[in-house]
Amino acid sequence: MAKGLLAAIALACAAAPAMAGEPITLSAMGSFHVGGRLAEIAGQPVREVTFTPGGVPARVDPNGQYLVESMYVQFHVPNPQRGRLPLLMWHGGGLSGVTWESTPDGREGFQQWFLRRGWPVYVSDAVERGRSGFPPPQLIQGEPLFLTVNNPFERFRIGQGQGSWSMDEAARRVLPGSQFPTDTASYLNFVRQVVPRWTTTDAAIIAAYTALIDRVGEAVVMVHSQAGQFGWKVAQARPDKVKALVLLEPAGIGDPGRIEALRGVPQLLVYGDFIAQDSRWPSIRRIGVEFAMKAKAAGADVTVVDLPERGITGNSHMLMMDRNNEAVAQVVQDWLASKGLWQ
Amino acid sequence: MAKGLLAAIALACAAAPAMAGEPITLSAMGSFHVGGRLAEIAGQPVREVTFTPGGVPARVDPNGQYLVESMYVQFHVPNPQRGRLPLLMWHGGGLSGVTWESTPDGREGFQQWFLRRGWPVYVSDAVERGRSGFPPPQLIQGEPLFLTVNNPFERFRIGQGQGSWSMDEAARRVLPGSQFPTDTASYLNFVRQVVPRWTTTDAAIIAAYTALIDRVGEAVVMVHSQAGQFGWKVAQARPDKVKALVLLEPAGIGDPGRIEALRGVPQLLVYGDFIAQDSRWPSIRRIGVEFAMKAKAAGADVTVVDLPERGITGNSHMLMMDRNNEAVAQVVQDWLASKGLWQ
Repeated sequence: MAKGLLAAIALACAAAPAMAGEPITLSAMGSFHVGGRLAEIAGQPVREVTFTPGGVPARVDPNGQYLVESMYVQFHVPNPQRGRLPLLMWHGGGLSGVTWESTPDGREGFQQWFLRRGWPVYVSDAVERGRSGFPPPQLIQGEPLFLTVNNPFERFRIGQGQGSWSMDEAARRVLPGSQFPTDTASYLNFVRQVVPRWTTTDAAIIAAYTALIDRVGEAVVMVHSQAGQFGWKVAQARPDKVKALVLLEPAGIGDPGRIEALRGVPQLLVYGDFIAQDSRWPSIRRIGVEFAMKAKAAGADVTVVDLPERGITGNSHMLMMDRNNEAVAQVVQDWLASKGLWQ
Repeated sequence: MAKGLLAAIALACAAAPAMAGEPITLSAMGSFHVGGRLAEIAGQPVREVTFTPGGVPARVDPNGQYLVESMYVQFHVPNPQRGRLPLLMWHGGGLSGVTWESTPDGREGFQQWFLRRGWPVYVSDAVERGRSGFPPPQLIQGEPLFLTVNNPFERFRIGQGQGSWSMDEAARRVLPGSQFPTDTASYLNFVRQVVPRWTTTDAAIIAAYTALIDRVGEAVVMVHSQAGQFGWKVAQARPDKVKALVLLEPAGIGDPGRIEALRGVPQLLVYGDFIAQDSRWPSIRRIGVEFAMKAKAAGADVTVVDLPERGITGNSHMLMMDRNNEAVAQVVQDWLASKGLWQ
C-alpha cells in the first residue's frame, strides 16, 4: 500500500473521540491490586469444609497469615490518548467502583464518558468494598453497615427526605425536577450497587489509595462523597503526584493541620441541586467549601461550582448517574482542559 | 475522500483480531446487575452514624427492606465480533470475576484473550462475592469463610500439598514444572484476589446466573471450579439458551436427576496437571467426569481434555492465570470453533 494511503488510514482510524454508541479503541485494559498488609490469626479451631454439595471435603485451618487491606483497581487506556495523565475515580461510601460505570438506567457513566474523551481511566474499589474483599472479623474493627432500600433515596437528595420512599411508584415523593432515574426498575438497580461498608477503615483506605498513586505516578484524582476525605488526604501525602483534584460533593475533608501541602494542587468542587432545603447537606457543603477556602488562602487554585448557578438543575448526590450526567461531566472536563491537563 | 479510499480505510481499521499489546476496539462496554429479592429486617435499634470524621451524623434505621442476592456483571463487546454468542465467564469459590482479568504477574487474562478473538465477554461476581455485595447477617445463613495466605498455594496444585507454602521463596515447595507464577510478588497478588465466601448460598447464586442467562439470551458459558455446579445446573434450567458449556476443573456437578436436560448442550471439560498425585483432585476429577459421561450417555456432545495428554504441562487449578494460559485458552477456542460458535 502507498505510504500516503497508510498515513490517511492512520489519520482516519485516530479520528475525534467517539461519542456514546460509537466504538471505543483501547491500547490497554486490565486490573491489579495494590497495598495491603500481612496479619495473623491464632488459636482458632481447624474445620473440615465441603465447599460444594457432593464435593470432596477440605481441611480449612483459619490460623495463620492473611493478606488484608489491599485494593482492587481496573484500568482502561484509550487510543488515542488526550488526557495528559491517568484519571483515577474513587467512589463514595457504601458503594464500589460500579458508581462510575453504566448508570442504573443503562446509559453510559463517567467511566465511558471520560474514556471517549481520551482519558486513561482507573476505577478502584476501596479497601473492604467490592472486589477488594474484606478481612476476617478478628482483623477488622467494628461491624459492617448495611443500607435499606429507602435509605439512599431519602439521604442522597433523590426523594424529599425521611419517609419519602415508597415501593409504590405513585406514592414515591421525588424531589420536583430530580434528574435521578427514579422509576422502580432504575432505582432498584442503584440499590443493587450498594455494598456493605465499615466506618473504621479510613486509615487503611488512605494507605491503599496512596499506594495506588505511588504505582500510577502523576494523576488526576476524581472523588465522590466519602472519598472527599481520601482525595484531600492523599493529595496532602503526595502533593507532587496529585496534579488535580475533582471533588464531587465531598462528604469529608483533609487534614486542616497540613493545609499548606495543598497549595500546588488545583481543586474543583462540584455540588448538585436541592442542598439548601436538605437537613444535612448545607452543613456538609459548608464544611467542604470551608476546607477548600483554607487551601485557597494558602495559595491553591480552587474552583467551587454549584451546578444550579450554571443552569444545570435537578442533580442528586449521585450526579454521575443522573439523567444529565453528561452536562456534569462536561463541567469537569472543561475545568481539566482549562488547567492544561487535556490536549 | 474517494469512495474506494473509504472502503480501504474501513477494511484496514477492521483488521484481524489484535494480539496482546495491540489495541482492542469495543462497540460497547459497561455493567449491570441482575436478580435478587426483597427481604425484611424488623425489631433492630435505630442508630446515629457519623460516616466520615468531621462529617454530619445521619440516622440509620436498620429495619426495613433490603434488596439482597443480586449479581454484578461487566461486559465488553469487541468490534469486529467473531464469536457468534456472548461468552459468560463464571469464577470459582473464594474468588470474583477478577479471576478472568489480568494475571497476578500482570499478563493478559482470559477476558482480554477472548475479547481479542472477537468474543463479547461478560464477567460476573457471584452473589455475595465482590461487587455483588453481601446481605446483613440476619438475611444470610452461616458465616463467611476466609482463606489464609498458604491455603490456595497448598490446595490449588501450586505447591506440593499441605505445609508446602513458605513466605521465604527459597523454602517454598512448588510442584516441579508448575506454570503458576510463584514468585512472592505474583503469588501475593493472587492472594489479594481472594474474597470471603459463604457455603450456604448456592441456590441464590444459581437463581442469579439463571437471571443472567434470561437477560443475555443464547450464550456460551465458561465456568471454573465451584461454578461447575452452577454451569451445569443453569444449563439444565435453560438448555435452550446455554449453547455450549466450558468447564475448567469443575469442583461441583449438576442435578443427576435431570441429566436428560443436558443432551443438547455441548460440553468441554478441561483439567490441568498434577492431579494423580494430589490428595483430593483425583476424586474431584472423577466426580466431574462421571457426571459428564452420564450426560454423554443421554446423548450430549462431551469432550474431556487432560491438558498433559495434549503436551500442555504444569497447570495448576488456576489454569487461566498460569504462565501458559494462552495455550489453555487456545484449547477452549479451538473446541468452540469446532462447534460452529466462532466465525
